[in-house]
Amino acid sequence: MPIHPGEGPPPVFRPPAASSSFASLLNAPITSDLETIEVGLVGVPFDGGATVRGGARHGPREIRNQSYLIRGVHQALQLDPMTLCRIADVGDTPLDHLFNLEDSHRDIQAAFARIHRAGVVPIAAGGDHSITLPIFRAIARERPVGMIHFDAHCDTCGPFAGSKFHHGAPFLHAVQEGLLDPRRTIQIGIRGTITDKDLWQFSHDSGMRVVYMEELYERGYRAIIDEARAIVGDGPTYVSFDVDGLDPVYAPGTGTPEPGGMTTIEAQLMLRRLRGLNLIGGDVVEVAPPLDPLGNTAYVGATMMFELACIVAESVAARRRP
Amino acid sequence: MPIHPGEGPPPVFRPPAASSSFASLLNAPITSDLETIEVGLVGVPFDGGATVRGGARHGPREIRNQSYLIRGVHQALQLDPMTLCRIADVGDTPLDHLFNLEDSHRDIQAAFARIHRAGVVPIAAGGDHSITLPIFRAIARERPVGMIHFDAHCDTCGPFAGSKFHHGAPFLHAVQEGLLDPRRTIQIGIRGTITDKDLWQFSHDSGMRVVYMEELYERGYRAIIDEARAIVGDGPTYVSFDVDGLDPVYAPGTGTPEPGGMTTIEAQLMLRRLRGLNLIGGDVVEVAPPLDPLGNTAYVGATMMFELACIVAESVAARRRP
Amino acid sequence: MPIHPGEGPPPVFRPPAASSSFASLLNAPITSDLETIEVGLVGVPFDGGATVRGGARHGPREIRNQSYLIRGVHQALQLDPMTLCRIADVGDTPLDHLFNLEDSHRDIQAAFARIHRAGVVPIAAGGDHSITLPIFRAIARERPVGMIHFDAHCDTCGPFAGSKFHHGAPFLHAVQEGLLDPRRTIQIGIRGTITDKDLWQFSHDSGMRVVYMEELYERGYRAIIDEARAIVGDGPTYVSFDVDGLDPVYAPGTGTPEPGGMTTIEAQLMLRRLRGLNLIGGDVVEVAPPLDPLGNTAYVGATMMFELACIVAESVAARRRP
Amino acid sequence: MPIHPGEGPPPVFRPPAASSSFASLLNAPITSDLETIEVGLVGVPFDGGATVRGGARHGPREIRNQSYLIRGVHQALQLDPMTLCRIADVGDTPLDHLFNLEDSHRDIQAAFARIHRAGVVPIAAGGDHSITLPIFRAIARERPVGMIHFDAHCDTCGPFAGSKFHHGAPFLHAVQEGLLDPRRTIQIGIRGTITDKDLWQFSHDSGMRVVYMEELYERGYRAIIDEARAIVGDGPTYVSFDVDGLDPVYAPGTGTPEPGGMTTIEAQLMLRRLRGLNLIGGDVVEVAPPLDPLGNTAYVGATMMFELACIVAESVAARRRP
Amino acid sequence: MPIHPGEGPPPVFRPPAASSSFASLLNAPITSDLETIEVGLVGVPFDGGATVRGGARHGPREIRNQSYLIRGVHQALQLDPMTLCRIADVGDTPLDHLFNLEDSHRDIQAAFARIHRAGVVPIAAGGDHSITLPIFRAIARERPVGMIHFDAHCDTCGPFAGSKFHHGAPFLHAVQEGLLDPRRTIQIGIRGTITDKDLWQFSHDSGMRVVYMEELYERGYRAIIDEARAIVGDGPTYVSFDVDGLDPVYAPGTGTPEPGGMTTIEAQLMLRRLRGLNLIGGDVVEVAPPLDPLGNTAYVGATMMFELACIVAESVAARRRP
Amino acid sequence: MPIHPGEGPPPVFRPPAASSSFASLLNAPITSDLETIEVGLVGVPFDGGATVRGGARHGPREIRNQSYLIRGVHQALQLDPMTLCRIADVGDTPLDHLFNLEDSHRDIQAAFARIHRAGVVPIAAGGDHSITLPIFRAIARERPVGMIHFDAHCDTCGPFAGSKFHHGAPFLHAVQEGLLDPRRTIQIGIRGTITDKDLWQFSHDSGMRVVYMEELYERGYRAIIDEARAIVGDGPTYVSFDVDGLDPVYAPGTGTPEPGGMTTIEAQLMLRRLRGLNLIGGDVVEVAPPLDPLGNTAYVGATMMFELACIVAESVAARRRP
Repeated sequence: MPIHPGEGPPPVFRPPAASSSFASLLNAPITSDLETIEVGLVGVPFDGGATVRGGARHGPREIRNQSYLIRGVHQALQLDPMTLCRIADVGDTPLDHLFNLEDSHRDIQAAFARIHRAGVVPIAAGGDHSITLPIFRAIARERPVGMIHFDAHCDTCGPFAGSKFHHGAPFLHAVQEGLLDPRRTIQIGIRGTITDKDLWQFSHDSGMRVVYMEELYERGYRAIIDEARAIVGDGPTYVSFDVDGLDPVYAPGTGTPEPGGMTTIEAQLMLRRLRGLNLIGGDVVEVAPPLDPLGNTAYVGATMMFELACIVAESVAARRRP
Repeated sequence: MPIHPGEGPPPVFRPPAASSSFASLLNAPITSDLETIEVGLVGVPFDGGATVRGGARHGPREIRNQSYLIRGVHQALQLDPMTLCRIADVGDTPLDHLFNLEDSHRDIQAAFARIHRAGVVPIAAGGDHSITLPIFRAIARERPVGMIHFDAHCDTCGPFAGSKFHHGAPFLHAVQEGLLDPRRTIQIGIRGTITDKDLWQFSHDSGMRVVYMEELYERGYRAIIDEARAIVGDGPTYVSFDVDGLDPVYAPGTGTPEPGGMTTIEAQLMLRRLRGLNLIGGDVVEVAPPLDPLGNTAYVGATMMFELACIVAESVAARRRP
Repeated sequence: MPIHPGEGPPPVFRPPAASSSFASLLNAPITSDLETIEVGLVGVPFDGGATVRGGARHGPREIRNQSYLIRGVHQALQLDPMTLCRIADVGDTPLDHLFNLEDSHRDIQAAFARIHRAGVVPIAAGGDHSITLPIFRAIARERPVGMIHFDAHCDTCGPFAGSKFHHGAPFLHAVQEGLLDPRRTIQIGIRGTITDKDLWQFSHDSGMRVVYMEELYERGYRAIIDEARAIVGDGPTYVSFDVDGLDPVYAPGTGTPEPGGMTTIEAQLMLRRLRGLNLIGGDVVEVAPPLDPLGNTAYVGATMMFELACIVAESVAARRRP
Repeated sequence: MPIHPGEGPPPVFRPPAASSSFASLLNAPITSDLETIEVGLVGVPFDGGATVRGGARHGPREIRNQSYLIRGVHQALQLDPMTLCRIADVGDTPLDHLFNLEDSHRDIQAAFARIHRAGVVPIAAGGDHSITLPIFRAIARERPVGMIHFDAHCDTCGPFAGSKFHHGAPFLHAVQEGLLDPRRTIQIGIRGTITDKDLWQFSHDSGMRVVYMEELYERGYRAIIDEARAIVGDGPTYVSFDVDGLDPVYAPGTGTPEPGGMTTIEAQLMLRRLRGLNLIGGDVVEVAPPLDPLGNTAYVGATMMFELACIVAESVAARRRP
Repeated sequence: MPIHPGEGPPPVFRPPAASSSFASLLNAPITSDLETIEVGLVGVPFDGGATVRGGARHGPREIRNQSYLIRGVHQALQLDPMTLCRIADVGDTPLDHLFNLEDSHRDIQAAFARIHRAGVVPIAAGGDHSITLPIFRAIARERPVGMIHFDAHCDTCGPFAGSKFHHGAPFLHAVQEGLLDPRRTIQIGIRGTITDKDLWQFSHDSGMRVVYMEELYERGYRAIIDEARAIVGDGPTYVSFDVDGLDPVYAPGTGTPEPGGMTTIEAQLMLRRLRGLNLIGGDVVEVAPPLDPLGNTAYVGATMMFELACIVAESVAARRRP
Repeated sequence: MPIHPGEGPPPVFRPPAASSSFASLLNAPITSDLETIEVGLVGVPFDGGATVRGGARHGPREIRNQSYLIRGVHQALQLDPMTLCRIADVGDTPLDHLFNLEDSHRDIQAAFARIHRAGVVPIAAGGDHSITLPIFRAIARERPVGMIHFDAHCDTCGPFAGSKFHHGAPFLHAVQEGLLDPRRTIQIGIRGTITDKDLWQFSHDSGMRVVYMEELYERGYRAIIDEARAIVGDGPTYVSFDVDGLDPVYAPGTGTPEPGGMTTIEAQLMLRRLRGLNLIGGDVVEVAPPLDPLGNTAYVGATMMFELACIVAESVAARRRP
């Protein structure tokens, strides 16, 4: 049964304004048929890679729960992503080895590999940031990808507490495994206290462009994003949005908050200015609902995911055209 | 496409322990095909009948969101309701006239009439208590029903603020419209301050059994429920559970809390002791999530709805047998 | 301008159900004319006597704010206190020496002396428990009074951090100053950890009846209250209700919570069973709103104050009759 | 009994610093005599026009409750509004038809008509934004007014869920009824997701100036407000401040938050720069306290209302002078 | 440097009432010298065994933070545990393999083995319930121990999500490894929904006494505890207190809450009635602070740990005497 | 026993990532030996000088509790303060006269005098702002100091509620007592409503530079800080950071919040730009944890204290060099 854009699953009753019957990511249609869609919204309810505070395993559930506040049309861009291309919420990745970090990564990789094989562009709702590594293993095997990365942390550090795979290290491994091109990578919003002066040395050594928060504040978002566009060029590019890139007042519900971050409007304006890039996937990670009982962080996460969905949908539609 | 017990909609990926991909009432399967089920879980996201504090319109959404904490088997009763009969979450009732109380009631009635015509026994997740009147109009037309009613309020008062229909009055109208048999009705947990000494006079005059909280406390739950069983007998009986019957510490997220109420274990033991009655429907109402950011009230609401689902499923299964 | 029962100040517009225009204690009329009333509800926004956690200075404001949930009639007692006698909210006591404990006590005493001289029976909303001492100094000069005291603490200990006056000591001083008759005093709900085994030795030595929580739990509220009635007899009796007598789940917003306390229904049933005593005043103290953002503690405080208002009003009306 | 500026109702006792005895809007005097005042602060506890999330009915109560944090003098403007002209809190509008949107609007209109007939300039504390329509019907009958409107939404859309009157539509009707001059109207802060690309087409078609959030961010508040002053000129002008114009971190307690909004200091600087306009009324709407347990949104609402009171009082005083 | 009872580490300044300079478990002295103490309070900040919701890794930190509310003397028992024997907070166990469940268990076992070798009786603050297995491996090697276990769950189930070690299974393994004597084990408070009717079959099959919540409610705490005493006899006995044994209103901050549980006073009375048993250790587990921002659960956890400390200290002192 | 940088007290077990065994200010080592350190972090758990809302007495405890989120290295400055000089948490000041403001100030002064005599540079964690006066009395006797002061309030007003000493007045007294040089003082971020137009007249009259929030917003942080550096010159300078200088969204847990304040990144950039000044002490005050249950304000307070520690440590190290 093919899913047409905007159709969604046929509930018994239409949902009223305040409540969709069944919560889905961005209020998108729900499907299990990957063959019928072009963009798949995917939950990854995993926080086994968190070093300090967990809770991101509940991110997908709560982002769905708050998505009733997302209406379909992006006002500033005048875009309706669901009509630009076929988008659906395909559910959560299975996690059959909850207590083992590397096995869980394999589970996540397998799920995204299935999505990738179906030709579907994924936008993930995390989950902690360690999930981006298995996503890359699934979708970047053919060639390394570029990345525009919003975060307070570079996530390129070494082993921690006995494991080299955790939410502070995915991009070191992605480069070492040939999945991420560091010269086509820019990291924006980096700040906070660190355990070692050289914690993110790998970013610098490998050639990534690291934009510390101070530089973003002083130069303004336009200069940074224009540089980001130049860095990634027209090659395949992934956008990874860690909500701790935002100041904690906008996203208190996250595992490793760092005061002094981006505002939501800065983040929105930056994401919107990525229009026209060759986008092949993205994620919004580190939404940890137990740390924000009012649900505001999950709503901000949904908002950023909707920004992503708009620019990814436009990119997918552009590639589709002859 | 028939729904078999436990089957549910086919998501792309199996949900992990901490997160069902798509939240449903009691983690039940989701369906749009009423012909295939025997018990329908229905959301009624309406709070236009609330007199003091709203928020119950978000009840169904948040009860779904917290239902990931409900596993399938009732330990004390050793019952698995989903295997006893075919149960599904059929979504929310449509509400096309959100700003008009009586039109909304007509919308709700129409939805339950459709469920009733399909031979499905409904268990509703409110919404404010005014919704039980249109439910009765849909399912009790053939003959008046009996009711076991847990609440801090009798909900049999007269007009308020210009309307005779509101969440403090459904059972006055249900009796007057011949849908509810007051002599087969018992109201348990009544307490709190009131605006007028005769506020619930209709309950007494019409012959309902009113159990004030003091009596419940002094005599204990067994004596009360044994009397309830005697009152409703083996006729068709509806169970209406207003979470404000519980003490506010168990259900702070409700519109008209009254200190000094039932404990959850008292409520659970009472519901379980209704096994074997001829149950034709029920509801859990007045869960108002904005008034309880931690979600505990919605989880308690889901818990009571699960208790209801078990005894209703057993009753449905018993009637099915030749 | 005399205040008649139920009249209140003439606002421009009548308040709707969800919002009294101007919040008052128990939704009572507001007056500044002590000559016209028999019972005065008084706020004492002072927490300078708190030893561990402050916040009770906001008690009167937040109890007023939550009083919109209190309707006028006590359902269980079938009493309408505002028609039994003339009751009004007379505002807060002035506190002109906020940073000096003993001067503040003098300010409080002066305010209650004025009330007492006008023949008005006071019911206070605290404030920390140290305020009961200046209240006694104002109203018990003629003869020592008896007291029924609900609390987790006996509040009869010695000096602390350089002061003999604080919220753990009012009743030691009240006895020593001849204001409180220890043999007509009962303290109910005592429990928790203490700094010294002999912390409450004064209660025992002076002849107060101390009911520890374990005894209340084992013997039940009726036995305890029947004993309380016998102890205070028909002499003038004050009722002091510290919300930390309740278990912290019912009153988390308080300065020195002690797990394992009374339930609200136990407290309500005890207060109701005090009907017919010769009541000459009372208070509800230690509501500390900043420690309970949801406002539930203030609502519980208002509820207990309403219970008090009913039995005090009945007692005042009884004394009035020839 | 005339009310003189700063006098207020005579409470029994003076309030201490931390607690006014009786909470009023902006700590203003309370009166029921409209003849004695020039500016009336009015609560409108109505949220029957909310489409997504209710709770604004509690706005006036909680803005009063948080007003103890508002002292009398505006430091930046060096203005004391209560000495500039006679200001009082006149209470809440009566709402006798709580369950009927259009009847409620009639109740609100009647109350403001009474205020208007007495020559009093109203500043309202909502309630949802639908209340501005009945306010206009009461005060703008003589001639259409201009408006400076802070909001995330234009509130000029068509029918929703069976009603054309709701909190997303007041200004469409105000224009159609000849109460609002669209060419003298500017809407500032518009953003968020929408259900339809043409949702606010009426604003554009009717000639309103619509300032999207992006433009405000890029051009700065001065350019926008200078344009606003030019648009409304010296004709009669109303200021409507919906707190959802602010970013949700400043006002989480509101029905339809949209991430990426104004900061409070931007809003304050804009309001202050309206000095000298011909202001004939204003409102602060959509404060929904149940959605922000800490009360911060209500305090921000009170802060904006105080900014409004200062510039309105100055305008009233200026018109008074010969 | 021997630690004498009540001495503690010498801070520069004495702590005031509201704040100990340095937070410790139960405000006990802090030491690193195991040779000088008889009872060691130990934090185990591990939640890698949680199946549904994490957060218990923050339990020790937040129990310390809330311990300022614990004073030194147990009022009901008239016991001062710090004078009965030498007690100190020895800090948290090291966890060098945070992302590996079994390696973490080895780390925990090593720490408790060191404590055990020093002849110190441990009382642990969890952490999720999986930690009790490595504790048993450290302290019960010589002979199987008996256990009094308060919990909503039997924690004797099989593999979950790919691991046989998790917080729902410690006691199955403890029995299988010969560390726990099932015939000297009683489990109290069992309830809630389960995934399988036979989930806790191992408890029954192995001979443990399982007291479901219904039985506790019906028979009362005395009968249950008297039976518990008979079951464990005078052999070495461990007390494991999972805070989810309490009703969620008392301990909302826990990973797998189950409505309808014990009250705190029931739990306290049961723990006190264990006086005189031969106690060789204990724990309070599953305090998950992120799920209870107000800190009440951590305070309840500290309260139960203090009850444990009293009865364990008394037992240690009794064994010491010739 | 000398304390070497980074050594700290020897806990039994190493703390894992998520939990230091024993919470200390900025995770610094704990010591009681003032002779061994150069910079002392000191808690001052006193809020007896608060005029509106208390709670700051819990500031030191909760700043310690949230300090687990502070890692040791300042990323932007590339500084590790603990290696620059010997820093330790020396505990809280004793407060033996909790109920007497002036005696408490004497207690605080005595503690800081002891620190000062040992040649230790103090950085205090308040406590309300009244504590800075006794700190000055201890450390500025030799010569008046300059001050860079971040705050919403000038704190130079006269008597309030019967006391000239309170948290709104420390700097008036510091000048009058010859401890603070007003011409070397700058106050940044002043705003909000005030009780009197001349409330801060003393600041202006004495020659302090007062930077209102509007000026900071318009001119930007660099211009202000460059002016600050010129004003204090190379004389001894103290930095006082009241968290209410920040907008309330960043620091809701504070006694007198004023909407429209600084962002955290502005504050951080200002503090960092103070490098190289001759810093002789500092404080972070007015963190009132009960008003922010999520702990974010305490974390922001710890963050600002870490910024302070870095620039103070660098200044101490510079002075040490020959």
